[in-house]
Amino acid sequence: MAGNKVKFDKSSQEIIVPGGSLISEAAQLAGVDIIQPCGGQGRCGRCAVLVESGKVRRRSALRLSERDIEQGYALACQTVIESDSAISVPPQEKIERRLTTDRIVADIIVPDGYDFSKDQTIQRISLKLTPPNMEDQLDDASRLKTVLRRNFGYDNLFISLNLYRKIGDILRKGNWQATVILELQKMHESPDPQVRLIDIAPGIIPEEQPLWGVAIDIGTTTITVWLVNLINGEVIAQASEYNGQIARGEDIISRIIYSSKDNGAEELHSLVIDTIHQLLAQVCKRVKGRKCNLGDIVKATISGNSTMMHLFLKIPATSIRLSPFVTAVNELPVLSAGEIGLDINPEAPVICLPGVASYVGSDITAGVYSSGMDDTTETTLFMDVGTNGEIVLGSHDWLVTCACSAGPAFEGAGVVHGMRATNGAIEEVWIHSDTYDPTVRVIGNGKPVGICGSGLIALVAEMFMTGIIDKAGNIKSNLETNRVREGEHGMEYVVSWGNEVENGMDIVITAVDIDNLLRAKGAIFAGYQVLANSVGIPLELTEQMLIGGSFGKYINIEKGIEIGLLPDLPWDKFQFLGNTSVKGAYYALLDRKAHERISSIASRMTYIELSADNSFYERFMSALFLPHTDLSLFPTVKKALENHN
Amino acid sequence: MAGNKVKFDKSSQEIIVPGGSLISEAAQLAGVDIIQPCGGQGRCGRCAVLVESGKVRRRSALRLSERDIEQGYALACQTVIESDSAISVPPQEKIERRLTTDRIVADIIVPDGYDFSKDQTIQRISLKLTPPNMEDQLDDASRLKTVLRRNFGYDNLFISLNLYRKIGDILRKGNWQATVILELQKMHESPDPQVRLIDIAPGIIPEEQPLWGVAIDIGTTTITVWLVNLINGEVIAQASEYNGQIARGEDIISRIIYSSKDNGAEELHSLVIDTIHQLLAQVCKRVKGRKCNLGDIVKATISGNSTMMHLFLKIPATSIRLSPFVTAVNELPVLSAGEIGLDINPEAPVICLPGVASYVGSDITAGVYSSGMDDTTETTLFMDVGTNGEIVLGSHDWLVTCACSAGPAFEGAGVVHGMRATNGAIEEVWIHSDTYDPTVRVIGNGKPVGICGSGLIALVAEMFMTGIIDKAGNIKSNLETNRVREGEHGMEYVVSWGNEVENGMDIVITAVDIDNLLRAKGAIFAGYQVLANSVGIPLELTEQMLIGGSFGKYINIEKGIEIGLLPDLPWDKFQFLGNTSVKGAYYALLDRKAHERISSIASRMTYIELSADNSFYERFMSALFLPHTDLSLFPTVKKALENHN
Repeated sequence: MAGNKVKFDKSSQEIIVPGGSLISEAAQLAGVDIIQPCGGQGRCGRCAVLVESGKVRRRSALRLSERDIEQGYALACQTVIESDSAISVPPQEKIERRLTTDRIVADIIVPDGYDFSKDQTIQRISLKLTPPNMEDQLDDASRLKTVLRRNFGYDNLFISLNLYRKIGDILRKGNWQATVILELQKMHESPDPQVRLIDIAPGIIPEEQPLWGVAIDIGTTTITVWLVNLINGEVIAQASEYNGQIARGEDIISRIIYSSKDNGAEELHSLVIDTIHQLLAQVCKRVKGRKCNLGDIVKATISGNSTMMHLFLKIPATSIRLSPFVTAVNELPVLSAGEIGLDINPEAPVICLPGVASYVGSDITAGVYSSGMDDTTETTLFMDVGTNGEIVLGSHDWLVTCACSAGPAFEGAGVVHGMRATNGAIEEVWIHSDTYDPTVRVIGNGKPVGICGSGLIALVAEMFMTGIIDKAGNIKSNLETNRVREGEHGMEYVVSWGNEVENGMDIVITAVDIDNLLRAKGAIFAGYQVLANSVGIPLELTEQMLIGGSFGKYINIEKGIEIGLLPDLPWDKFQFLGNTSVKGAYYALLDRKAHERISSIASRMTYIELSADNSFYERFMSALFLPHTDLSLFPTVKKALENHN
Repeated sequence: MAGNKVKFDKSSQEIIVPGGSLISEAAQLAGVDIIQPCGGQGRCGRCAVLVESGKVRRRSALRLSERDIEQGYALACQTVIESDSAISVPPQEKIERRLTTDRIVADIIVPDGYDFSKDQTIQRISLKLTPPNMEDQLDDASRLKTVLRRNFGYDNLFISLNLYRKIGDILRKGNWQATVILELQKMHESPDPQVRLIDIAPGIIPEEQPLWGVAIDIGTTTITVWLVNLINGEVIAQASEYNGQIARGEDIISRIIYSSKDNGAEELHSLVIDTIHQLLAQVCKRVKGRKCNLGDIVKATISGNSTMMHLFLKIPATSIRLSPFVTAVNELPVLSAGEIGLDINPEAPVICLPGVASYVGSDITAGVYSSGMDDTTETTLFMDVGTNGEIVLGSHDWLVTCACSAGPAFEGAGVVHGMRATNGAIEEVWIHSDTYDPTVRVIGNGKPVGICGSGLIALVAEMFMTGIIDKAGNIKSNLETNRVREGEHGMEYVVSWGNEVENGMDIVITAVDIDNLLRAKGAIFAGYQVLANSVGIPLELTEQMLIGGSFGKYINIEKGIEIGLLPDLPWDKFQFLGNTSVKGAYYALLDRKAHERISSIASRMTYIELSADNSFYERFMSALFLPHTDLSLFPTVKKALENHN
């Protein structure tokens, strides 16, 4: 049989391959690297290539859309070359994006065309003052106020006692030149503009020198800090870490119970503050060039669920878990770092973004803002999966929201080998349907350490699709593989053997882990249904679905649908937004109007209490199966299962 | 010689006395008590009585005005009864007031017809809230805000983080009935009314229950606290004590120097706070009936000179003593007790009243307000003699002020046997011009312990008028009395022998003490002259002279004039107002408009820096003599001296 000439765009040389060769085989011959995470089973869809010319035969195209095929895409591992061909290999990233829509999580972003100075409440101004003399004995504070009023129109300067203690020395140290940092509490256009002195330093500070702020997302499981240059909006450094409170309870309810114990609230407050301080130290350390000291950080915005916000501020959270589930406060005034005990500039304004209810906090209002769903005409479903699953349905005109008790599984906590989406986390899994052996992708490409949220979703989906677990999530004990075994806590499946693992211990998923995940995803799906039902819009008419939260670098939509976590919508309706909570805090850090819009979102969102909804429990029970008791809700999964069988 | 019938109004019986009897002798016979502090020498003027009918002969009427004589007054010890007579004895208090004009110092006062509720910034309101339920999950804070907005029109309620930590528990503890204490930061009529929550307690509190505030005067030497019921303005208790900082320097300058040492500012801050805390404990303890805890005190106003205010607030005071003598701040925003470290309700607003300059503080602005001089058309000289002597000249239309470094002599400190005007203090002295033996009046009528400010003035005046000291203040060594002797620190005069004294030690005044007093009074008199000169009004055209400060219970005007401390004006132009500083603080505690008017006084007062005035030093040197180098400035003293010689 004569060979076929094949030219890959990534190789300078044309090669000749035997008839019946797979594109993947040809690529190997040509020295072109095509990734095949699932090991060439045609199941991950990651080896898609574009057939520019020539005839090919697609053995399987399960992971490609019709439009993909029209455009000439083929899976390299499943496609036979039948004539001379020219094949281009898209950048891996491009494929990933096509499959996962968007993998931006917390990459450093600078929004385009944003005028940061316009609605920034923090201003830095260098001043020259006339020194006092025997004919002009005006007090230091009035001297400062006068210059700011005369030269900048800033009336009603508020100076705190702490700063009254500093100004005299600093004005003299700088020989009556000084740089002030101001917070514009009410803007110029307000009838009573008010300005607060945040700090004062001797001498003139160059305008280009950064002015530091931090956006902080306090999750039940994970805390994220972004260090931002307020001058140009640049995110200079970021860091995430497990919330130190985890040691006192993994979910919200156990934290609240702990906080009611003697000294419990104090301890939880210290733990979260400690974690934030560690993260602040990390981000400050990562600043290159001019040093950033903690005291140089002059503004902070904080988002988080209502319980986290209460515990962070040492406000009793007990009423949150007791019927009728009421917070002490949803919207706080701007606080100062000093009164909270946050170790940045003590005068720095700290904006704790407003929440809606006990279980819909400012992580959601900030998330809705950063997702833009409050500014679109499309019916949008927004989901933030962290320790809880909060869902918002709506558009520019209306917003309804609810919260589902999901637990921290999707953040890698509460799962035997769970972990955050950092180096060493298994973030994607493919299982061979004959051997039940998995192929995994590990963040950082090193040895696996554990499994993060997206990895868990993929793992359960693959276990289900390959028949390792049944639709109730039970691990089958009669399979011909030593990966399924009786463990300490019942049946378990070995994802990675100890010899492949960083610490030498087998990485497994247990029946209990799977049960936790099913309960989490079941609660979330039932939540979608209650929201959709409340406004009389069928779930399938959702025009876009926006996903925020700590799902690791990305979540595989298909697998999310396969386990029934995501509704079975066309893939192009999904968009992954990463940590929308910290992004919302970031915008509020830079932009007073963003803060105002988040407040407006909080006040106009209708909260639906699921525990008071008659239909929720039944819907939840039906959603505990894979993907759901009612398979008609998941037509593509139904079709895939039929193909498999 | 036939007797004369005499009838005293204070006795039911008419008596018959021998011809040539003194009224004082007749009174003794009739069992009528007429005080004779100077022992019947006709020098104190305190035994004045009214001769209703009959003929009398006044041997001496030196202490009576012409108008007194016209009205029939006579000195009982100097007046011979020459016919049947009817004599009425005025209450001693009335005489004292005539001689000293007014001896109110810090007596408990309730101004008449004052509507305390109208301009009181503190309001206490009892509330009934609707409890939350599953259909109404409004957060606690919003629930509270809604009731206050709907039922009372209080918009924009500000709640501090500390109170957010309390409200949930308290609302539930009171079964959704609660009493709030509010501070109206901006009033209803303001375009942006603002209300701050000061405290919240469970349940309903009866309206008649007191609402506590404190007015505090921080003097360099003495601190005074008034505990006030804000509901009706009643001063429930008051207490004074030496400022604990005295141990670190008696005058302002040495305090400032001490504050610049390592930890000095911290130490001085603690000392003054400690004294205030002792006084607060005292006044709370003195409340009868319902207990007053420190935490129940919900508002404080503070007056004091600029240095005391800086040291109290731990604001560096160094620039106050260095040319060009500038404070860090003259007018502070309303602070909270918590941030100052004042141990009353931590949310209590603390109004530190505004000062004018380094050496004219809020003790003076508050004093000017409480004296009413900013609201009169009469040219008024106001003097507050504490550790420094501050003087204000002016009226409704204009105010000029200056400060004289007087030292603490007039407060009884910095003088060997000086003391405050409390029990045991010698407050008045008369010396017999032949024997040089003194008669003293002691506060509380017990054994003497020391000499207070008014006693010192009287003592020096008497020593001068009886020739124990010359016009330069030197003690004459050639007098026939063992009371003048060489002491450890030079010449001294024994006021009380040890056997008459509480602790058994001789009470003396030394040459150094006299020198201190002369320098103090000299500086003050030179200050009057500079002020009068600055506005071109001769000092003798002053229409009234108001005197505030810690002069003990009262000061003898005549003796103040004799030593040249007071200008030689007719006695009826003098008015003693006691501690005008704490009185101003008291009004500001009760009345927002009083606070505003004190601010307005501070801003419109023109400060004259004596150290920059060309004429001051010369005027001071001339005023170091008794009463003055230029005797024509003191015509009545000149006349009295001529009578003596």
